[in-house]
Amino acid sequence: MTIKWGKFYGVGVGPGDPRLLTLQAVDVLQSVDLVAIPKSKLDRDSVAWDIAKIHCPSKVRLIELEMPMTADHQVLTKAWQEGAQTLLAELKQGKSVAFITLGDPSLYSTYSYLLDILQEELPQEYIVTVPGITAMSAAAARINLPLATGDEPLLVLPSTEDVGEFLNFPNLVLMKVSRRLPEILTLLKERERKAVLLTRLGQTGEKIRWEPKAEDFASDKIDYLSLLLVKKDLLGRGNNEPQKN
Amino acid sequence: MTIKWGKFYGVGVGPGDPRLLTLQAVDVLQSVDLVAIPKSKLDRDSVAWDIAKIHCPSKVRLIELEMPMTADHQVLTKAWQEGAQTLLAELKQGKSVAFITLGDPSLYSTYSYLLDILQEELPQEYIVTVPGITAMSAAAARINLPLATGDEPLLVLPSTEDVGEFLNFPNLVLMKVSRRLPEILTLLKERERKAVLLTRLGQTGEKIRWEPKAEDFASDKIDYLSLLLVKKDLLGRGNNEPQKN
Repeated sequence: MTIKWGKFYGVGVGPGDPRLLTLQAVDVLQSVDLVAIPKSKLDRDSVAWDIAKIHCPSKVRLIELEMPMTADHQVLTKAWQEGAQTLLAELKQGKSVAFITLGDPSLYSTYSYLLDILQEELPQEYIVTVPGITAMSAAAARINLPLATGDEPLLVLPSTEDVGEFLNFPNLVLMKVSRRLPEILTLLKERERKAVLLTRLGQTGEKIRWEPKAEDFASDKIDYLSLLLVKKDLLGRGNNEPQKN
Repeated sequence: MTIKWGKFYGVGVGPGDPRLLTLQAVDVLQSVDLVAIPKSKLDRDSVAWDIAKIHCPSKVRLIELEMPMTADHQVLTKAWQEGAQTLLAELKQGKSVAFITLGDPSLYSTYSYLLDILQEELPQEYIVTVPGITAMSAAAARINLPLATGDEPLLVLPSTEDVGEFLNFPNLVLMKVSRRLPEILTLLKERERKAVLLTRLGQTGEKIRWEPKAEDFASDKIDYLSLLLVKKDLLGRGNNEPQKN
């Protein structure tokens, strides 16, 4: 028997503001049979769902997939495998599924790992990735600062241990900064780089901190949904003065 | 007399497909007094306007701004200054203006230069940047390939002369490749990097070329709206086989 596959959509819902969904994302959310929501723990809220839900039919069927936040590759692989099997069971019955993801599904998303597994069975023509507004685009827009201009490169870097090696890049976006924020801010000061820290963009609790200092974060744990835009100079740009939030 | 400023919006319209505008971008286009369109020459079509126009009221007022494609900084500065003065004249009369830009206004856009000049007079609270889907996010989505995963960096690079220095990055997006495509493809072959070339994404004439070869472009001029996604390996990912376009 040939399988009549349902379509699988990876839908980027942007970083927070529900107005940053694309028209295509809204169309998909309004037409699929079910919406799949990745959750770090099943009893936690999902930020992606908070953003997407106002665009979904009120009675849409939901599947929650547990995707733990851990560096343990064995635990992760098991979660991806189980998630993929749950999705495949629905897709094989011809159900269309939208897997929602914060920001853009192609950039640092669990979607990529799931897709890898799904592709072993699901033919390419049943897969549609719907791009989303990245956190970095929304961050730059929020403070009217370019990510990059002219012939300058832009480096996007999860905050790994070797971040110091890359501080010469004129335009730097540091993701996942909550891991080692005081350490990074100390490095930036030593290397005379300027930064803006943006947290929970477009969400309740949004915070923008111009030129944050290491000592302000010595004890506080910073929110997971934070990024740093790093430049040689923030103040050379017109009258774009540091703003207090 | 105090000026009653109109609001200035920098609106990213995404790379081509009109369904990739955000809801916020559509709201802005439907509510502003006028839409400003940058053009390389005034008698040329504007790709950004081709994308935006179906979302605008049929009788919206348009201002065309000539922004020549040149490396001559003096010519550019003059064009930016003149464009900014044209916009300021409208904004000072309380007119709201949407300046449309391909992709995302914060990434390699004339918008950043214009904004620099506008900010000398226009207060921050009258400036709203509306982020757009970047060409790289749309490119990755189009072929279901991640831009970056896990702790890997992503480097976005206009195709400058020193591109060879950066080929060790695991995830590379080369913008503006039309400048020196055969040279870059030769380098990629030497360094055993795999690439996908995407041209006019979501537009008429869209082309996707998996593992393009230098000799195929020896004489052809490649379209300006092209980018290369470069990886160590394209084929390790599930059954994501090279597709012919």
